[in-house]
Amino acid sequence: MNGAESLVGTLASGGVEVCFSNPGTSEMHLVAALDRQTAIRCILGLFEGVVTAAADGYARMAGKPACTLLHLGPGLANGLANLHNAARARVPIVNIVGQHALSHLIHDTPLKSDIEAIARPYSAWLRTSQSSSQLGRDTAEALAATQILPGQISTLIVPADVAWGEGATLATILPAPNVPVPADEKIEQAALMLRSGRRTAILLAGSALHGEGLSAAGRVAAATGAKLLVPYPFARLERGPGVPIVDRVPYVPEQAAAMLREFEQIILVGAEIPMAYFASPNRGAVLTPPECSIIRLTTPSEDAETTLDALVEMVGGSPAISPIEKANRPPAPNGAITLDGLAQAVAATLPENAIVVDESMTAGRGMMAAARASVPHDWLGNTGGSIGIALPLAVGAAVACPDRRVVCLSADGSGMYTLQALWTMAREGLKITIVIFANRLYSVLRWEFSNLGVGAPGKQALDLFEIGRPDLNWVDLGKGMGVPGTRVTSLDEFVAAMRQGLASDGPMLIEAPL
Amino acid sequence: MNGAESLVGTLASGGVEVCFSNPGTSEMHLVAALDRQTAIRCILGLFEGVVTAAADGYARMAGKPACTLLHLGPGLANGLANLHNAARARVPIVNIVGQHALSHLIHDTPLKSDIEAIARPYSAWLRTSQSSSQLGRDTAEALAATQILPGQISTLIVPADVAWGEGATLATILPAPNVPVPADEKIEQAALMLRSGRRTAILLAGSALHGEGLSAAGRVAAATGAKLLVPYPFARLERGPGVPIVDRVPYVPEQAAAMLREFEQIILVGAEIPMAYFASPNRGAVLTPPECSIIRLTTPSEDAETTLDALVEMVGGSPAISPIEKANRPPAPNGAITLDGLAQAVAATLPENAIVVDESMTAGRGMMAAARASVPHDWLGNTGGSIGIALPLAVGAAVACPDRRVVCLSADGSGMYTLQALWTMAREGLKITIVIFANRLYSVLRWEFSNLGVGAPGKQALDLFEIGRPDLNWVDLGKGMGVPGTRVTSLDEFVAAMRQGLASDGPMLIEAPL
Repeated sequence: MNGAESLVGTLASGGVEVCFSNPGTSEMHLVAALDRQTAIRCILGLFEGVVTAAADGYARMAGKPACTLLHLGPGLANGLANLHNAARARVPIVNIVGQHALSHLIHDTPLKSDIEAIARPYSAWLRTSQSSSQLGRDTAEALAATQILPGQISTLIVPADVAWGEGATLATILPAPNVPVPADEKIEQAALMLRSGRRTAILLAGSALHGEGLSAAGRVAAATGAKLLVPYPFARLERGPGVPIVDRVPYVPEQAAAMLREFEQIILVGAEIPMAYFASPNRGAVLTPPECSIIRLTTPSEDAETTLDALVEMVGGSPAISPIEKANRPPAPNGAITLDGLAQAVAATLPENAIVVDESMTAGRGMMAAARASVPHDWLGNTGGSIGIALPLAVGAAVACPDRRVVCLSADGSGMYTLQALWTMAREGLKITIVIFANRLYSVLRWEFSNLGVGAPGKQALDLFEIGRPDLNWVDLGKGMGVPGTRVTSLDEFVAAMRQGLASDGPMLIEAPL
Repeated sequence: MNGAESLVGTLASGGVEVCFSNPGTSEMHLVAALDRQTAIRCILGLFEGVVTAAADGYARMAGKPACTLLHLGPGLANGLANLHNAARARVPIVNIVGQHALSHLIHDTPLKSDIEAIARPYSAWLRTSQSSSQLGRDTAEALAATQILPGQISTLIVPADVAWGEGATLATILPAPNVPVPADEKIEQAALMLRSGRRTAILLAGSALHGEGLSAAGRVAAATGAKLLVPYPFARLERGPGVPIVDRVPYVPEQAAAMLREFEQIILVGAEIPMAYFASPNRGAVLTPPECSIIRLTTPSEDAETTLDALVEMVGGSPAISPIEKANRPPAPNGAITLDGLAQAVAATLPENAIVVDESMTAGRGMMAAARASVPHDWLGNTGGSIGIALPLAVGAAVACPDRRVVCLSADGSGMYTLQALWTMAREGLKITIVIFANRLYSVLRWEFSNLGVGAPGKQALDLFEIGRPDLNWVDLGKGMGVPGTRVTSLDEFVAAMRQGLASDGPMLIEAPL
């Protein structure tokens, strides 16, 4: 058995089922090993930012890691921006990067680069495997490290001679790491706060945003009157009728501060203290009032569900969950395209158990509110602020959940960063309905510029904000990659196109000009 | 004057005329300063890999740096793969990356990342500016560092509060660094080798591949009978009738070794010893015979032209240059599409003083040979082996040389990495004729796989090599970004399309199915 076979075999025995990949010459032995391993499905992305974001989307929905396979330093570099987002989403990924043969690294050949240096900022676990006999064990350790709650990125760098060398063996899969819970005093402190009668928000992240974790949070809220909030950046939020109401902290700092001002106390469950994404000359990052008491009940790596269950008991909570969303699906709108109308149309057409991937940016600020009580669904967001994640994140979510429909909401500017994901959707026949909000503008930048107090943008600034001249034609772009599409000119057409897309056997793209 | 204004003003007074950019919120004060600075032209790329490769192409043809403007760690990350190529091309670039306000960096906000760590492997000069009053000076130092021969990447990281802070000043432009020449003994040693009568190759890079540097190399060859070679990866090579003959070391290691076997001596002028890109289980990196004597006459940072002029005198060379290419333009071919036919068609239609950007990969192996003596032209190659450079490199070359035609030869797989460059071509009306060689395959990978000795690729391997299913339609992709195009089905049509593209006022795309 060669090293590559031990890596692939160990991943397969550890339950890894999908490899998102864009390999190169130095990864051919790994490709050969994957070729003979039927338990792992290989999915090609035509750009590495597609590969890493797809692994992120897969992990968010499957709750377990996929692996990637990337070509040397440049392949990794192309995947970094979405690894940044994945690291912020705290998802498990086994990120496999090829390297030159160790014997080749003494030479300064064109593709040589310091892969560890490039990977380090994005990797909770990082190792260059040094021998074929060790590669299986390295793989098992990399896999185990991804499972430290809530999930981590392990980057395993595989020199070509380590992959092709013989004498390798399959490694035993390591037990999942223990899941720590906070000290009892911490839970008692939270209970005390919740019983104080002061206005309290519980800020949720990770596993507290869906399934049993969210139910437990809902029982705490029911027993204490605390409000459940989610920070603006989040990985996955379960929503819909019967699900606890969770309000999102807005992106715009002034709006976020206004929401948070109402609370005297904040309890963090896996979440971080909300901060403005950016500072400005007249405003810092802090959004919470200075007199607000903030405690961290669980860190991201502690067990939120068990902790919330214990908290329910301490506050005398019942099995009831409240307040919950009451079913409220808006009717399909018609008439001219407006942002509110598009939001209503998405809510009106969203299928049961849909997965919504949202990078609609300024165009989509009303999208979540409109759809919140329509049907049961999951909402996936951009966690790290690096735009260009929605299309490939949708790929990963669709691969993880073949029985669910994916609705991908993308701004036109964001979509252009990783538009190659459309091709993977077509090749894999993924049931993704893509909505491109085409305002032909980096709208957030024009908005930020207008806040600088330097007057209206001139020609050069507009050249950097406007992404028209020429206008992108997303129907042609989709067609060029095998994704059928349509451009709509009214809400009626948009609703009809959504219904068509959601009934089709593969991807469909809808361009909504704004 | 704020920091941003001092940065932009200092760049302008240092002769920087172009800013390739994809800015974000944290760079708005820099955008505002650029908006009021008419000496610097701002060009938007819809993805950062376009921005960095365009800066590379500009530098190769303009012989001086452009600046970039990138958004935080993710924007830099997206540009790294082509910065890798640019670093290998040894071109000057002032790489400007925004950073959060220093006051904001104490918080762990979504977009925070270790920008210095990410930039370090690609930057010869690297600094995070710490104050508005220092930013002008930092800019001048960054600019000066780009000019250390033959050119370097300076990465200047600009925190938002350093950009918006007042009290900044324009900095004095620093004098260009001295250009070292090798010790006389080194030149005498080379002369001795050249007069020895042994079979000698002079391996050229950098400024020895065009203009006066190449002429001087041609005079050395004329006087001594040495052969001029260029390593497979090179930045810019001048070719055509009357230009010294320079043969390229082939990519395929066995072919490269066969070429180099004929030489007893190699003299390196700015070039590195040729090595195989990759090792394989049965072959190392070294391509030169063990008994070959190799000396480094000039390092990349020494003055090749002056050194070669001195060498001409020592070997008693005359002003004559030989052997030179004799004009030999093939006739336009017709009939069915073949690789040889496409190469002949490019040679037959290439306009005088064209710039050819070549990432045609396996499809284009005959391209250079066919065009070598057609008309005077420059050939730009992929220096770092990170594919996805051709389209944006062509953007930069066209911006640098508005009076010259650019022919961009790209494989379909390579082109997909940075296809967003097509949009910038359309917006800027660049006279680029793009040829996409559509073999619907990562052909080099299938070829490498077949050399592994593990039999034919199975379904999973083919899924990773074949980029059809569905086929990309490049005419639609171009149309979606405002670039007109056509798919040809014969050499006659290809020749006609080339002529049409080369006569048009902007970009045109030709898809050549293979």
